[in-house]
Amino acid sequence: MLTFGQFGAGRIGRMHAKNLAANPRAKLSAIYDLDAAASNAAAEETGAAPAPTIDAVLGDTSIDAVLIASSTDTHCDLIERAVRAGKAVICEKPIHLDIRRVDACRRVVAESGVPVQIGFNRRFDPSHAALREAALQGDLGRLEQAVITSRDPAPPPLDYLRVSGGIFRDMAIHDFDIARFLFGEEAVEVAAMGAVLVDPRIGEAGDMDAVMAVLRMESGALCHINCSRRCAYGYDQRIELFGEKGMLISENPTPANVSRHTAAGTSARGLLHHFFIERYAESYVHEINAFVDAVESGSEPSPSFEDGRRALLLADAAVESAATGRSVRVGR
Amino acid sequence: MLTFGQFGAGRIGRMHAKNLAANPRAKLSAIYDLDAAASNAAAEETGAAPAPTIDAVLGDTSIDAVLIASSTDTHCDLIERAVRAGKAVICEKPIHLDIRRVDACRRVVAESGVPVQIGFNRRFDPSHAALREAALQGDLGRLEQAVITSRDPAPPPLDYLRVSGGIFRDMAIHDFDIARFLFGEEAVEVAAMGAVLVDPRIGEAGDMDAVMAVLRMESGALCHINCSRRCAYGYDQRIELFGEKGMLISENPTPANVSRHTAAGTSARGLLHHFFIERYAESYVHEINAFVDAVESGSEPSPSFEDGRRALLLADAAVESAATGRSVRVGR
Amino acid sequence: MLTFGQFGAGRIGRMHAKNLAANPRAKLSAIYDLDAAASNAAAEETGAAPAPTIDAVLGDTSIDAVLIASSTDTHCDLIERAVRAGKAVICEKPIHLDIRRVDACRRVVAESGVPVQIGFNRRFDPSHAALREAALQGDLGRLEQAVITSRDPAPPPLDYLRVSGGIFRDMAIHDFDIARFLFGEEAVEVAAMGAVLVDPRIGEAGDMDAVMAVLRMESGALCHINCSRRCAYGYDQRIELFGEKGMLISENPTPANVSRHTAAGTSARGLLHHFFIERYAESYVHEINAFVDAVESGSEPSPSFEDGRRALLLADAAVESAATGRSVRVGR
Amino acid sequence: MLTFGQFGAGRIGRMHAKNLAANPRAKLSAIYDLDAAASNAAAEETGAAPAPTIDAVLGDTSIDAVLIASSTDTHCDLIERAVRAGKAVICEKPIHLDIRRVDACRRVVAESGVPVQIGFNRRFDPSHAALREAALQGDLGRLEQAVITSRDPAPPPLDYLRVSGGIFRDMAIHDFDIARFLFGEEAVEVAAMGAVLVDPRIGEAGDMDAVMAVLRMESGALCHINCSRRCAYGYDQRIELFGEKGMLISENPTPANVSRHTAAGTSARGLLHHFFIERYAESYVHEINAFVDAVESGSEPSPSFEDGRRALLLADAAVESAATGRSVRVGR
Repeated sequence: MLTFGQFGAGRIGRMHAKNLAANPRAKLSAIYDLDAAASNAAAEETGAAPAPTIDAVLGDTSIDAVLIASSTDTHCDLIERAVRAGKAVICEKPIHLDIRRVDACRRVVAESGVPVQIGFNRRFDPSHAALREAALQGDLGRLEQAVITSRDPAPPPLDYLRVSGGIFRDMAIHDFDIARFLFGEEAVEVAAMGAVLVDPRIGEAGDMDAVMAVLRMESGALCHINCSRRCAYGYDQRIELFGEKGMLISENPTPANVSRHTAAGTSARGLLHHFFIERYAESYVHEINAFVDAVESGSEPSPSFEDGRRALLLADAAVESAATGRSVRVGR
Repeated sequence: MLTFGQFGAGRIGRMHAKNLAANPRAKLSAIYDLDAAASNAAAEETGAAPAPTIDAVLGDTSIDAVLIASSTDTHCDLIERAVRAGKAVICEKPIHLDIRRVDACRRVVAESGVPVQIGFNRRFDPSHAALREAALQGDLGRLEQAVITSRDPAPPPLDYLRVSGGIFRDMAIHDFDIARFLFGEEAVEVAAMGAVLVDPRIGEAGDMDAVMAVLRMESGALCHINCSRRCAYGYDQRIELFGEKGMLISENPTPANVSRHTAAGTSARGLLHHFFIERYAESYVHEINAFVDAVESGSEPSPSFEDGRRALLLADAAVESAATGRSVRVGR
Repeated sequence: MLTFGQFGAGRIGRMHAKNLAANPRAKLSAIYDLDAAASNAAAEETGAAPAPTIDAVLGDTSIDAVLIASSTDTHCDLIERAVRAGKAVICEKPIHLDIRRVDACRRVVAESGVPVQIGFNRRFDPSHAALREAALQGDLGRLEQAVITSRDPAPPPLDYLRVSGGIFRDMAIHDFDIARFLFGEEAVEVAAMGAVLVDPRIGEAGDMDAVMAVLRMESGALCHINCSRRCAYGYDQRIELFGEKGMLISENPTPANVSRHTAAGTSARGLLHHFFIERYAESYVHEINAFVDAVESGSEPSPSFEDGRRALLLADAAVESAATGRSVRVGR
Repeated sequence: MLTFGQFGAGRIGRMHAKNLAANPRAKLSAIYDLDAAASNAAAEETGAAPAPTIDAVLGDTSIDAVLIASSTDTHCDLIERAVRAGKAVICEKPIHLDIRRVDACRRVVAESGVPVQIGFNRRFDPSHAALREAALQGDLGRLEQAVITSRDPAPPPLDYLRVSGGIFRDMAIHDFDIARFLFGEEAVEVAAMGAVLVDPRIGEAGDMDAVMAVLRMESGALCHINCSRRCAYGYDQRIELFGEKGMLISENPTPANVSRHTAAGTSARGLLHHFFIERYAESYVHEINAFVDAVESGSEPSPSFEDGRRALLLADAAVESAATGRSVRVGR
């Protein structure tokens, strides 16, 4: 049983708070948000206490760990304050949009020796995880190619987009992490192309809404990623992993399993989940369990701070490649 | 918020107890099982108190409702004692194996005016329910045929089988209920055939392990049911509902959604769930919510006691048809 | 290379004539139909000569075999005349609607020693045949259950229905044959139920348009058949074969393989084939090849005359069961 | 009815010869191959005459058209000689491996005014064609992304690979053509990456065996292509076309439609086709019909000579991009 404090009570924060409250291995003790009304609402839903300040959480010696689900620009500061206060940390992705700030934070984390896990929840999706597991078991022999499809149902608000760091750092960062996770190795080269196809205002804001990338992994394997900020049929999250002995596909799950056969055609299993909160519900539960496991056993949390940093390096490389038309080598 | 007592702490009882404990609209206060060790274990898992006697539960004025998950032969007695004590009842299926006992119990329930719901949980499966909903919306036009496939992974122990009432009353009773649920009307005629194909000891015990039935509904629609006590590929639970405008199929869900493509072929979405506890997990949660809704709003619970009785009438008719080779008219 | 004459140039006759003309192992030499215009049209399409009379075909010593695709009531007469003329015969199903006429014809065929094959083309469908093959290989272990679904897109004209012998002899006869084919054994008992759900005029004509049957096979295995004269989503032809080790399903093929994902849902592989000519196109080609193989090698054709007779016995038993409400034992 | 001569009687040549022989709108009159034994074998199979020389075919005034299925290095010479002799041409892909030779040939074709069609048969696959058709109908709204997967079951012999022009010009050229076909517009930029993952001897021969590319189309849409020279589960040929209103997928067809459910899992519809001759059988028939249509109606054949040339330009751009790590603009 781990006692948690939490920072951030927005949409994803409230989901995390409920998951902590329902988890028999966790106790959500205090929750803080800049917006006191949000803190209060989340506290009421979960039985936690609304915290008046960040320090009220970090100074509470009954709290073992903090979950950081506040806005991206606050992550590094909160991570540093938390590890200095000796609180284990699980922090939403991305760590930060600026790799230099991440590198500085990395030093603080390393010195503290406190465990930090980054919220790449998709690694805990049972189907995605089954691909990694099968690859590890050798079911596919040598891994050769992957195709990762990642499409949101609709663009986020422009106000969000403007501070998001762009589609590669905000959205594709999950896919860069999944690429590293699937192959179990680093990507060494990134080629990317992007376009504005969904909403010209996204282009005017300096971002893109449809992108494709190809990664070369250390072993020589190739990985394709495609993202779109719009998807008429729901939240499309599929992964193909292809190797010497065959292919595994993590298919889109559906809320129900009803096929419909009419004069208009045969429809299979109905609509997809609307978006990540529903689609990846299980994974958010599992990532908390993995974090509790790691903290309680003293093992290194996974995905680690370094995993968060490497995904940002790939996103940065993709940004550069899309801008220059050259494939970009990824540094260490 | 409804406060529950529970009778029965076997496999299905412990599942129900956990569901009650996790349900924000329910509180499990006391649990009783003939086997005190079982009571204690379930109590410990859920935070409920182990009750020393049945009367300790029924006499507790803080308890609003009881969930009956004890052995079938105790159901009618417990229902009668509970409704006389003014406790709303949700009782596992079947009500009893003898229709005369059910009829006697029906009178007591009717006199009491206390709400009783029968545990035909499958009605609450999201996919099965979607078929009923679509039929009600008229998506299929006139309903014409249904095919219900219901196969258990492996036979239960012979000791259980011997007191089970036979495959029609123990296993197919769910399917008889689903037939009435899908069509929204009564079955008026049953033709059934059975065989012993899985284990000769089941035949020696006077039962069958593979059966097929055809029901004629009041509207003239036809419904096929097939059951097997063995299924190599898991727990097979599919329903086809066919009408003037098309067909809906409630397909088997799978725990993960990984397709596998190798030299040996293409496998779709992996293995099925092993058995009912996993397969119908959601439905068991939903049936509690429906019961709480009914009790709190004062509406008639559904599936009702009468639904439980009608399913038993169909099972009895199937037993007779399989024995005589004649189709059997179903009485009121 | 076998030289054929053909009787009958209606819809199915023209399909057969084209298949014979395109088969490198067959030559269609002459075609006869009561309607000379039909003979001429089919002859022109295929390069065969229109025959002025039946005897012109049977007396032509260059002709080795005849394909009979005329109306059902002419089958037995033509089979008898053909085998007496020493022509090998492949004849459309059913042999005749009256089992006594079939039995008389059987004696003539037996005395002649001439090979006769019955047009149960569905045995030659690659997917259906794969089920039989897998069963023979033991892939399913002991065979336990089958579910055969057989739904036509729309009822035939009432004029046809009135002379069709009824839905069991006209339509379900294919499914009775498939049941015997799949299990490789006889059915010993039939229970059937029928209804008029599609068109009341079908009932007024003394027929039914929606039926369900259960067969008990010699081994004890059970087989369900459902038929409908209407199917909004096309021609639905599926078979499930279930045994100790698992289940095989011969699924509906589709003309194209395009899945469609929109806000309205996910549709799989598009519409079904419209009807048997398209759906079973391959099987009609394969049955000719099997016939040529049998005649050229001197082996017994399959499906045999006796297969045609046994299917009719099952259809007769189903008619009786549906009328009496009793399951009917099937004689030899 | 068009009378054909044919050049080339290798594997694909014999398939074409049989298709011409079976096509009621074509007559295969003469066939020539450098290897007289191959000519003779193909002639015997089809009823055509083996031609002693190329000129014997081109000088035969009864011949309207020639099908060129000889080795790639002979294509341009034969096209030029054929159009100068006034014979309409359908020629296998690629036109040539050197764009300069293609450009020279283009001038000869243009001057002749004789129709020339290039053998991009995949455009005629019913499922692929359905995607293009739906896009034209506006079913997808604005086209945004495509993912083309193209994997051969096993590498060709090294002797073939050494003269093949490399994986982009030999294999991916089909996919470049499909990209242009799907979007109905030109690709303006190509980024490609390649690797040697299957057989090091392919790398030693200067080629790659696993490649990924991203194309930017004129409209801004993005298209991903992945190819592998090895695929354990058969011949994998899928296309996803994604737009504003949804996605269509041309799925892999299967020879049979049998799903298999065992303790080892659920397998869907069995193995894929082995390779292109079986997989694309229908498309090879349809491309001949389209060619006959064009020649008989005097309309421009499609895919045209220019389509062949544009696909080679894209392949050349991919070769350059994979070598330099820069995305390459595609010229006119």
